[in-house]
Amino acid sequence: MLKLFYAPATCSLASHIALEEAGAEYEARRVDFSTAEQTKPDYLAVNPKARVPALVTDRGVITETPAILTYIAQAFPAAKLAPANDAFAFAQLQSFLNYLCSTVHIAHAHGRRGARWADDPAAHEAMKAKVASNMTACYELIESKMFEGPFVFGDSYSIADPYLFTVAGWIEPDGVDPARFPKIVDHRNRMTARPAVARVLAMLKV
Amino acid sequence: MLKLFYAPATCSLASHIALEEAGAEYEARRVDFSTAEQTKPDYLAVNPKARVPALVTDRGVITETPAILTYIAQAFPAAKLAPANDAFAFAQLQSFLNYLCSTVHIAHAHGRRGARWADDPAAHEAMKAKVASNMTACYELIESKMFEGPFVFGDSYSIADPYLFTVAGWIEPDGVDPARFPKIVDHRNRMTARPAVARVLAMLKV
Repeated sequence: MLKLFYAPATCSLASHIALEEAGAEYEARRVDFSTAEQTKPDYLAVNPKARVPALVTDRGVITETPAILTYIAQAFPAAKLAPANDAFAFAQLQSFLNYLCSTVHIAHAHGRRGARWADDPAAHEAMKAKVASNMTACYELIESKMFEGPFVFGDSYSIADPYLFTVAGWIEPDGVDPARFPKIVDHRNRMTARPAVARVLAMLKV
Repeated sequence: MLKLFYAPATCSLASHIALEEAGAEYEARRVDFSTAEQTKPDYLAVNPKARVPALVTDRGVITETPAILTYIAQAFPAAKLAPANDAFAFAQLQSFLNYLCSTVHIAHAHGRRGARWADDPAAHEAMKAKVASNMTACYELIESKMFEGPFVFGDSYSIADPYLFTVAGWIEPDGVDPARFPKIVDHRNRMTARPAVARVLAMLKV
């Protein structure tokens, strides 16, 4: 059975929702960031990157959100979470996932994980000061150029949707004005009403 | 016909090599970073992210290196640049591509693109100071945990190989000791000898 290592308030939320949407049987295993469990030998044996999410399959461990999401879509094709047999549409989906992980998540991470990229506390403050404007630029690009509606890729719900939902949860914490992004906020509200999303959010509150 | 927008000394090298390996017919169009062409309206109409690479297809533009590489692999299946019909192996490939784009390339970018994440010049210096140690940690993980040999995924050459080759070109410029990474350096040397790679490198020298 699949096992998802997750932590609340991280991007593992996207993979967690995708598993529910796929109707997968899986075990959800919380990693305790308050004790830095992700840096301990037991967890490093699962994921040497010391991050979540990590998805354990019967063939090995998958890490990186876009890869886990793509795996879920392909392992549960009946859920139709990614385009099949259309290289261009599949590439557009991958491009969206990659933008979220390599630009948007990175811009967000500079608000609280600056120690990854500099040792000087003054540099961390300088990074924090730029998070709201960088995240605003990211959401602007998504709102104006990428989001088709009602889902990210038009009428087809896909693995892009739980990932955008996850990223959209950072709007207010990152000091971004939600009123500027009505499509993203509306999507977020509609996502919350989906049974799969509600089940995961309820589990995270426990 | 496909058109690749590229610039020398950027990660567009990976997509460029993949097109050659696939035997694709394509036009290579250099973007002149010395005049900031990537920020001008004509280029922003192609890629509003103001980055390279961008691959123009008859159905639209694809951006983000992992997405372009995956598209090339799927559009030219005879070249066998990605596993087909194996969701786990495909996810492992995606995970590798994602690690390079969202962790390794980002660590590298802090050496010269610090203005993306902070306005303070002192913060840029603090970021530069951490590049060598961060990149060393990335190469260490690739060398010890990810690289199977002789190619990234064992005997199967894939789109992971030109991307690793591209990233391995940053070892010396980023102040990393190549002697610590014999597998990555050997792979880099063998890649240079491949006809497809040699053709692209020759084109970039013009």
